[in-house]
Amino acid sequence: MAVQVSVVGSGAEHEARAEEVGRLLAERGCTVVCGGRGEVMAAAARGAKSAGGTTVGILPGTSRAEASEWIDHVVVTGLGDARNYVVAASGDGVIAVGGRYGTLTEIGFAALLGRPVVIVEPGLEIEGVPRVSTPAEAVDLVLSKIDRR
Amino acid sequence: MAVQVSVVGSGAEHEARAEEVGRLLAERGCTVVCGGRGEVMAAAARGAKSAGGTTVGILPGTSRAEASEWIDHVVVTGLGDARNYVVAASGDGVIAVGGRYGTLTEIGFAALLGRPVVIVEPGLEIEGVPRVSTPAEAVDLVLSKIDRR
Amino acid sequence: MAVQVSVVGSGAEHEARAEEVGRLLAERGCTVVCGGRGEVMAAAARGAKSAGGTTVGILPGTSRAEASEWIDHVVVTGLGDARNYVVAASGDGVIAVGGRYGTLTEIGFAALLGRPVVIVEPGLEIEGVPRVSTPAEAVDLVLSKIDRR
Amino acid sequence: MAVQVSVVGSGAEHEARAEEVGRLLAERGCTVVCGGRGEVMAAAARGAKSAGGTTVGILPGTSRAEASEWIDHVVVTGLGDARNYVVAASGDGVIAVGGRYGTLTEIGFAALLGRPVVIVEPGLEIEGVPRVSTPAEAVDLVLSKIDRR
Repeated sequence: MAVQVSVVGSGAEHEARAEEVGRLLAERGCTVVCGGRGEVMAAAARGAKSAGGTTVGILPGTSRAEASEWIDHVVVTGLGDARNYVVAASGDGVIAVGGRYGTLTEIGFAALLGRPVVIVEPGLEIEGVPRVSTPAEAVDLVLSKIDRR
Repeated sequence: MAVQVSVVGSGAEHEARAEEVGRLLAERGCTVVCGGRGEVMAAAARGAKSAGGTTVGILPGTSRAEASEWIDHVVVTGLGDARNYVVAASGDGVIAVGGRYGTLTEIGFAALLGRPVVIVEPGLEIEGVPRVSTPAEAVDLVLSKIDRR
Repeated sequence: MAVQVSVVGSGAEHEARAEEVGRLLAERGCTVVCGGRGEVMAAAARGAKSAGGTTVGILPGTSRAEASEWIDHVVVTGLGDARNYVVAASGDGVIAVGGRYGTLTEIGFAALLGRPVVIVEPGLEIEGVPRVSTPAEAVDLVLSKIDRR
Repeated sequence: MAVQVSVVGSGAEHEARAEEVGRLLAERGCTVVCGGRGEVMAAAARGAKSAGGTTVGILPGTSRAEASEWIDHVVVTGLGDARNYVVAASGDGVIAVGGRYGTLTEIGFAALLGRPVVIVEPGLEIEGVPRVSTPAEAVDLVLSKIDRR
């Protein structure tokens, strides 16, 4: 099984960074897990696909039609925003790009589960969670922490 | 139906504040909702019972035996930490006392759902979420926001 | 804490039986747990309230406005139909009145969790799950099995 | 995105049938979704891998270490048995092989969601859910119903 990294976040202004995160993860052989829908989620999946990677989208609703076109494998949870737990838990590590309250929950769950989690600046500030300046640093940092386990 | 307020948080050093929050909520006629187990959760429920109030405990596991003795009505979710969503959503408002990553997810979900949420100092600092100095201020603020809706 | 019994099912033609189940449970000092909405759920809660009992409604959506007027304590899960697990798990025992596929999931979860479960005829036929003819027999049987534990 | 079919069930005596279902689904180009763990779940995934297919395992616990070796993509839900909803919902169709109460909940959710669902004999008997004699018939029937939508 490949290493799986969840990319979480939101905000159209963060899409370029999310796409680069997705691309870099795929180049490193990781599967990209995300919430399956638009903006940052779609950008991360698109980046992964542009590098020949594989993507898993974990949807809040009850229909796979919600998934963006860059999702290979669809998980239909029907759990609404409680699916954020599943997104965080399904990554061996988590990278946050932008985002607000939903992303806060995903970072909180990742930390609670002991998954390595990194925030790409500009992004949320959460005590105890490292922040880095670039997508490349985020990918390096999260993978180094997964490797060490 | 009574107004329901969820009290979230953790940390033994915050129990006195949580107990006062629970007591004040009960005195104002509110039902106290919490995670049903120890520390801050138990303290909030104990405070509510000391004032003749009613408590609902929303447990992570599969057995009601997990509930503290101050819980009147037990909800057994079996969802693990994803039950934090249910705790946040079941309050008409949410008050956070202490806490770390789990509390972060509950505050995030409350904000995502548009529930009024207040943090009692010292506690987490989250952009956009008001902080107050005392349990009394927290109860006043959260109830004033519920009333306005 | 009072004994909690979950009443599950659906179908307008089963409301009278569900209401009697709710009333009898309340007369025996039990709290009635249900899915919080209409038909069988509302009837069970109405029956409990007619006998001075207490009711807990576990809703699938994100708003307490979904609850029927006979619900005292509202649990807002946002989980959609996955909340059926929480309904089954929150009862010390489960009584099914009518119902179809949703009820099937609740009976299945109750059995999986080892909660005593009884079906009131006419209702679903599930191997290994006892069926009785009347609400009174259902209440007697489920309470006798809870007592024995 | 490939068509996804969830294979549900339990019981060591049903493994050969589950493995054949998994193999036939992979030969038809479908991704096999399952609960990710042992017995029928592992057999279905093993069958799919033997035919060069792809598998998704949706786990109840909080660690990917629970997954069997035949799982390509792991979803860590932490939801306990409530993850059965996610297994059912993530299939465009569902095939049940053996099983007891957990399988009952998956069939119930599939039917509730309007997903085509088929039971391979010998297996559960549920009103309104078709039963077939062989894995080949099950795959044919469920795919014909997915195609028609």
